[in-house]
Amino acid sequence: MEQLKTLWYEADTDCIAYIDETLLPVSFEIARCTTIGELGIAIKTLAIRGAPALGLAGAFGVALAARRSGETTFEQFYSRVQADANQLSSTRPTAVNLTWGIQRVLSRMRTTGSIHEAKEAALSEALAVAREDAIICRKIGEQGATLLPDRCTVLTHCNAGALACSEWGTALGVIRSAIAAGKDIRVIVCETRPLLQGARLTAWELDRDDIDVTVITDSMAAQLMRKGEIGSVIVGADRVTRDAVFNKIGTYMHAVCAKYHAIPFYVAAPVSTFDFNGMEHDIVVEERGRDEVASLYGRKTIPDGVPVKNPGFDATPLALVSAIVTETGILSAPYDIRQVIEPAENTSRR
Amino acid sequence: MEQLKTLWYEADTDCIAYIDETLLPVSFEIARCTTIGELGIAIKTLAIRGAPALGLAGAFGVALAARRSGETTFEQFYSRVQADANQLSSTRPTAVNLTWGIQRVLSRMRTTGSIHEAKEAALSEALAVAREDAIICRKIGEQGATLLPDRCTVLTHCNAGALACSEWGTALGVIRSAIAAGKDIRVIVCETRPLLQGARLTAWELDRDDIDVTVITDSMAAQLMRKGEIGSVIVGADRVTRDAVFNKIGTYMHAVCAKYHAIPFYVAAPVSTFDFNGMEHDIVVEERGRDEVASLYGRKTIPDGVPVKNPGFDATPLALVSAIVTETGILSAPYDIRQVIEPAENTSRR
Repeated sequence: MEQLKTLWYEADTDCIAYIDETLLPVSFEIARCTTIGELGIAIKTLAIRGAPALGLAGAFGVALAARRSGETTFEQFYSRVQADANQLSSTRPTAVNLTWGIQRVLSRMRTTGSIHEAKEAALSEALAVAREDAIICRKIGEQGATLLPDRCTVLTHCNAGALACSEWGTALGVIRSAIAAGKDIRVIVCETRPLLQGARLTAWELDRDDIDVTVITDSMAAQLMRKGEIGSVIVGADRVTRDAVFNKIGTYMHAVCAKYHAIPFYVAAPVSTFDFNGMEHDIVVEERGRDEVASLYGRKTIPDGVPVKNPGFDATPLALVSAIVTETGILSAPYDIRQVIEPAENTSRR
Repeated sequence: MEQLKTLWYEADTDCIAYIDETLLPVSFEIARCTTIGELGIAIKTLAIRGAPALGLAGAFGVALAARRSGETTFEQFYSRVQADANQLSSTRPTAVNLTWGIQRVLSRMRTTGSIHEAKEAALSEALAVAREDAIICRKIGEQGATLLPDRCTVLTHCNAGALACSEWGTALGVIRSAIAAGKDIRVIVCETRPLLQGARLTAWELDRDDIDVTVITDSMAAQLMRKGEIGSVIVGADRVTRDAVFNKIGTYMHAVCAKYHAIPFYVAAPVSTFDFNGMEHDIVVEERGRDEVASLYGRKTIPDGVPVKNPGFDATPLALVSAIVTETGILSAPYDIRQVIEPAENTSRR
């Protein structure tokens, strides 16, 4: 089976191509966007989602805006691209990678002196982000694989796989690397309400790679832990602050239950996910629309007028996290996330 | 607003009338069944569900089978009714109340000497079960209400309300009684995957009674506990053994998270739910069909061929339960569930 690619830049026509993840597993379709407005909609509707993929989308988005610009002075050109980039950045406020990818390409553009040069530099930097993402996922996978014993059943939540990156995945990258190293790994994935990324995406991509995967509702995980059917938990992250891991809503529940059952709880996240100065209380958790909870495929599941809560993420204190696997090493308690600053700076200064 | 009635026996036409709960909240419809086979389907598809309502359905089902029987000898009459009752009993193996209701009416019939007398006795006993259920829920409500402080936000899971009984409810009965006693109570209900009884039924019946209710996905509860937004948890039960509470899948997760956050975790259950001799390891947890998890309203959410788990219930050890509210009193640690045997025996011998 060919390696799964989630999104890429088509330089000849200047467009961003991506798997429309809202349609999986019913249909597999490649969509394309040619404006940063279209890209914003794809991100807002979660056709493109997952922290590392958002970093990539941010980088590609700036390249797209730059290369399709018709401005004739550098100041107007750059300020227009920057305005587009700010608009894009606001589509997912909790995800740190989106802004990271945007800023990285903008910074590179600022080092150039002409529109032509800036357009070339933007594309080259965005493609570098994509290349690095693939390498980073492999490194996370290789390091994380050492944490999983042979014959282990791993619980995961949401999708931190190839479909959340350019390829391979972070949490699922660890699982893929452990299997590639000869270990017998089975996966239990929580469906991940409200938008079912676990059921729709993780099950799809693991099954495509012939990895043994079983889907459960989110509420079944604790009982499986109690029955000794879960050896480890591994999830991705949307943002790692100095005191907490922000990830898909439901992650915290798994962390509490893993702690209660003395099961290791791992997070796999590239350095671009780290918010080195942020603390949990600084972060605004995105509250998403009522319909995601109140209806399923157009059918009402909650009476009209009854309110819902729909935070996209929750925060898990680092005290509940056994280890964080990054491309530069494995962090554990007592956490000092600034241990990983240097490599990150090296990468972005490359 | 008129008091909600969930199921009842229509003696003039000998049929069981019930709210078809699979259609809520989209439409409110009263359905009727005239054979025990139809009743079995209504139970299997969860059109009728909830532990106390199943007790009532069992009692009504035996009355229906008896009263519609055309047999002419008592032996044939009784053995046919018994065979029908056994078939009905097998539709929900984990729920103890169904068999309890069935056995109660069968026992009463055995004390009679003629078919005519047995038909009268079956109806009279089934109607007594219904009357008592309403009284029992009020008693559970009144006793449980003392456990909830004023200005409390209560988390509940699934539906242990009027729609799970004949009226008032067990866990929701406690909430209704606390409100009737003048307390300011807000409710957070978990949607309860896979079949969304919390979103569809609990939200509907509380909203109908103008009780402040908000729906969340099951995975959000732990984070709300962490943020101090939940004061107490209260759920129903499908079976209480000497060591555990069996209730809707997801209950155990809430119990673990409540313990971790030092939030009281209450169970409200009539004595008919108690399995005085049973231990957790004796009980078979019903494994339900793949489609409940793998599709939503006809739309596939999991790739073909990927397996799911779908246990209907989980077991929560009594060590995680702060108190069990019954109609005869409130039990707490160290639990001796046989404290409630006497009243139960009195009731069934009445």
